[in-house]
Amino acid sequence: MHFLKGHGTGNDFVILPDPDGRLGLTPERVAALCDRRRGLGADGVLRVVRCAKHPEAAGFAADAEWFMDYWNSDGSFAEMCGNGVRVFVRYLIATGLAAPAAGGLPVATRAGVVRAVVSGDAISVDMGLPQVYADSAATIADRSFPGVAVDCGNPHLVCALPPDTELSTLDLGRAPEFDPGLFPGGVNVEFVVPGSPLPGTDAHVHMRVYERGSGETLSCGSGACAVAAVALRDAGRESGVVTVDVPGGRLTATFDGGTCWLAGPAVLVAEGELIQP
Amino acid sequence: MHFLKGHGTGNDFVILPDPDGRLGLTPERVAALCDRRRGLGADGVLRVVRCAKHPEAAGFAADAEWFMDYWNSDGSFAEMCGNGVRVFVRYLIATGLAAPAAGGLPVATRAGVVRAVVSGDAISVDMGLPQVYADSAATIADRSFPGVAVDCGNPHLVCALPPDTELSTLDLGRAPEFDPGLFPGGVNVEFVVPGSPLPGTDAHVHMRVYERGSGETLSCGSGACAVAAVALRDAGRESGVVTVDVPGGRLTATFDGGTCWLAGPAVLVAEGELIQP
Repeated sequence: MHFLKGHGTGNDFVILPDPDGRLGLTPERVAALCDRRRGLGADGVLRVVRCAKHPEAAGFAADAEWFMDYWNSDGSFAEMCGNGVRVFVRYLIATGLAAPAAGGLPVATRAGVVRAVVSGDAISVDMGLPQVYADSAATIADRSFPGVAVDCGNPHLVCALPPDTELSTLDLGRAPEFDPGLFPGGVNVEFVVPGSPLPGTDAHVHMRVYERGSGETLSCGSGACAVAAVALRDAGRESGVVTVDVPGGRLTATFDGGTCWLAGPAVLVAEGELIQP
Repeated sequence: MHFLKGHGTGNDFVILPDPDGRLGLTPERVAALCDRRRGLGADGVLRVVRCAKHPEAAGFAADAEWFMDYWNSDGSFAEMCGNGVRVFVRYLIATGLAAPAAGGLPVATRAGVVRAVVSGDAISVDMGLPQVYADSAATIADRSFPGVAVDCGNPHLVCALPPDTELSTLDLGRAPEFDPGLFPGGVNVEFVVPGSPLPGTDAHVHMRVYERGSGETLSCGSGACAVAAVALRDAGRESGVVTVDVPGGRLTATFDGGTCWLAGPAVLVAEGELIQP
């Protein structure tokens, strides 16, 4: 089995080229591949399949050639992954399987077709417009952090900390508590402090994130968009550029009035053949 | 740069074939390779160099063709690694760079020449005789665990828990405390409970280990030998076979009167080329 490994701001993936959809991928196989000690190790698997060759994606074949068949590291599916799409597109471009397109290169996902734009080291993906919709709070070890609920297709709770807080002192070794009435399916929780002003950007924040089902990660693409949406709202703006520093690097969220573009590096690290499992 | 990835009971390594010692390996490069999100990810790097081609190993060239140039994941050196040698020998045998030898295949390490024996899926390595030498104790969250100090070339503290203890309930998220007078350079701490009797084995134990400088790991070869030495002593024996179940699998320590042979699986997982870093 041929593979590549890549990452976007520390969110890492095993890429499995399978243009004709012949690979018999199972949850067990995916979990073994993602095992960080006994396998290749990754946050998830990106199988690269032609839409026309995958039963879940055939309906997208008129709009996109390639389907990102995304699997979480535990072998479950996810609809969409912002950093995953960026790494997926890096692979398509690097191998010549696709070329940058006017209006963005279309990629089919379980959440529909998204567009991606390549710009040197950075790849941007159209994430749609996050919806800020309710006040709430997260709790860590009996300390309550006020926050706001944001819908990015998946649920987020964005908690702004007092500006002098050291983000690194937060204990994210276990899940923050949240209101299960507001988030019946769980929620990704972002903790945010302001950053110093940056030229060419309308807001600059640092965040850490606890992802439901994964624990703390080095980066969360939709989380960065949620955080950026709140930062823009707090700045009284409807469009603009927000720089979001995550533990794994720097992401930029650009609100153009119609949608949110998530931009950042996407890197291919290695390529090879699986010996086992 | 060509690489392989392999593991022994969950202790995983990046293997860098470099027979003529031409690779300019630096601590930074090693740390980048071992980064589990942005690199290949591993507990350490095994560079495969001919003794005659490495300044630290030229003195071993009469006794061993190959030198295991072992680096920890943080870019520091280690003298020896029991699981590392087993994976190193798996690579040599699989590629035909060496063949099993009567009396064991010699491999040079910074701790001298060790011998390895291949037996199907298992590879054994001569670890020398552990020395049990002093009573001591480890402390976790104000709870004290009596133990004994064992020298395997590196220092160990083996703590037998009450037989009905659930090993999984121990919090090894941070380093257990120990007597710095007895272990001025730090110590690997093993926690042990008895296992059920197994045919063909003189003792059976389960262990978890906190390794100095690494935290909890899935397996520690010298730690398994230390634990086995204490189990044999407690059984009133000087030689025998001890089965040691670690979180990453099963190891066997055989005391033949003269030395301790550590045996267990050693697996090559993947092979490829680095794109970056």
